Amino acid sequence: MQFSVTVLGSNSALPTSERYPTAQILNVSERFFLIDCGEGTQMQLRKNHIRFTRINHIFISHLHGDHCFGLMGLISTLGLLGRTADLHIYGHGDLERIFQPQLDYFCREMAYKVVFHVVNTGVSEVVYEDNKVLVTSIPLKHRIPTCGYLFQERQSDNHIIKEQIDFYQIPVKSIAGIKKGADFTTESGELIPNQILTIPGPAPRSYAFCSDTKYAESIVPLIKDVDLLYHEATFLSVDEKLAAKTFHSTARQAAHIAKLANAKQLIIGHFSTRYKDLSLFEKEAATVFANTSIAKEGCEFVVPYQTK
Amino acid sequence: MQFSVTVLGSNSALPTSERYPTAQILNVSERFFLIDCGEGTQMQLRKNHIRFTRINHIFISHLHGDHCFGLMGLISTLGLLGRTADLHIYGHGDLERIFQPQLDYFCREMAYKVVFHVVNTGVSEVVYEDNKVLVTSIPLKHRIPTCGYLFQERQSDNHIIKEQIDFYQIPVKSIAGIKKGADFTTESGELIPNQILTIPGPAPRSYAFCSDTKYAESIVPLIKDVDLLYHEATFLSVDEKLAAKTFHSTARQAAHIAKLANAKQLIIGHFSTRYKDLSLFEKEAATVFANTSIAKEGCEFVVPYQTK
Repeated sequence: MQFSVTVLGSNSALPTSERYPTAQILNVSERFFLIDCGEGTQMQLRKNHIRFTRINHIFISHLHGDHCFGLMGLISTLGLLGRTADLHIYGHGDLERIFQPQLDYFCREMAYKVVFHVVNTGVSEVVYEDNKVLVTSIPLKHRIPTCGYLFQERQSDNHIIKEQIDFYQIPVKSIAGIKKGADFTTESGELIPNQILTIPGPAPRSYAFCSDTKYAESIVPLIKDVDLLYHEATFLSVDEKLAAKTFHSTARQAAHIAKLANAKQLIIGHFSTRYKDLSLFEKEAATVFANTSIAKEGCEFVVPYQTK
Repeated sequence: MQFSVTVLGSNSALPTSERYPTAQILNVSERFFLIDCGEGTQMQLRKNHIRFTRINHIFISHLHGDHCFGLMGLISTLGLLGRTADLHIYGHGDLERIFQPQLDYFCREMAYKVVFHVVNTGVSEVVYEDNKVLVTSIPLKHRIPTCGYLFQERQSDNHIIKEQIDFYQIPVKSIAGIKKGADFTTESGELIPNQILTIPGPAPRSYAFCSDTKYAESIVPLIKDVDLLYHEATFLSVDEKLAAKTFHSTARQAAHIAKLANAKQLIIGHFSTRYKDLSLFEKEAATVFANTSIAKEGCEFVVPYQTK
């Protein structure tokens, strides 16, 4: 089952010719969750061959333009492509107030509905769930109300041991229940405990998206043991004061959060345009947290199942 | 003196990974006029090394998203770059009503002012003029109020004949007046007519931008003898009915307009995403108007002075 993040935009507020403003796509078993939607997101989706029809949920961290100016273009394009299914957008309460007038003007002939869901960025709460994934908000500390999002796979079913199906002559109709944890009673009335029949399914995987924020240890308990962490690193440590002033983080601070949270892997991004050599970010973070990667447009980070 | 058009976006409503929605930049002696501003325009400006500070005037043809969804990102970026000079945007009266609320929300800390100028798209009238250029609206026939723009260079000063300066001992203080057409009186009182002292400056150059529109011969007198014409060609003739239905043009129709207007060169663009091979557009148009080029991202069309 797929669980991977593709970076669509890695830059901070000022895009360059190659580095786009923030947007990422999380693929959970071919359900695509779009996280932030900077200008040019729809072109980046095309470049990365991501099927637009697979996107049903968009999570917006905060209402700075570099995280949401691609919304109108994407929404409009989905309409032109003949979409009929509702599109759900999660974010600060102002999102609907600010975008609905443009939707009413530019997208009045659209055959689908945009449903806005208000996220209280000040608390950690479940903002979306289905049978595959649970999405929880992560309050961040930025200049305006901002939250990240934690995506957690649901615990998958137990794996049934094939040999036991034959041995106990388990009928097909009982298998689904056993996978969910039920015991099995044979025709002769013998109770076979579930743990004899199954092995646990793989541990659920998780991804935490944390941007934009200043260094905030308050998020650590919310992302404890996360498999993959994206944490913004707008600045290098040499500009730590500027980072604090603008409510952003340095590469080293992002790495500290990853270390404290016992994350397995860290992606850093949202780089300030002032830096040309992004390898400096990777080097700085790696001094604190070795398994750090740089967010680059088109990079896909696949989260493997953890071996126990 | 530079007079050239660079294509920033060549596509119609649905952008692809390579083809952006409509935007062009006209360079008149290093004054940059932005025409339409589809999503991604600011990235395309960067790619083409166009200095943002040189853009003071933006002309919007109509309020379909593929012609204006890049405005918010560009305006916001200009603010982050520390702009203080007013930015002037020309377009339909709804432009301000639709964008001002987002400006108030996203750009409230900006140190410069966005000044909206209402263009009556139903009549041809001067919408901007300075000492180098005159911009006139061109009413077009689209599904919503739409106009193109005609950019005309001002007639430049006469060129003074260097040998005559020496011969008549013309003082420096008289030269500017002579270039503007004044005669010269020598110290002995002899009147030297201007035409003996000068040769006319080069003929002013012109560029007409006509998108989006169905085939409309009504625009021909407004763009008569234009040096460079951009005319939309969303469809090929095989889809002429679709073009008529959607108030767009075919490549052949665009070429007919160029021919009727006695244009010197034609650029066609705003191609529907349904076509993969754009050379078909060029071929179709060239059967009617030979000097036709395809709009492609990054192409620059330099308008030379005409030899007399």
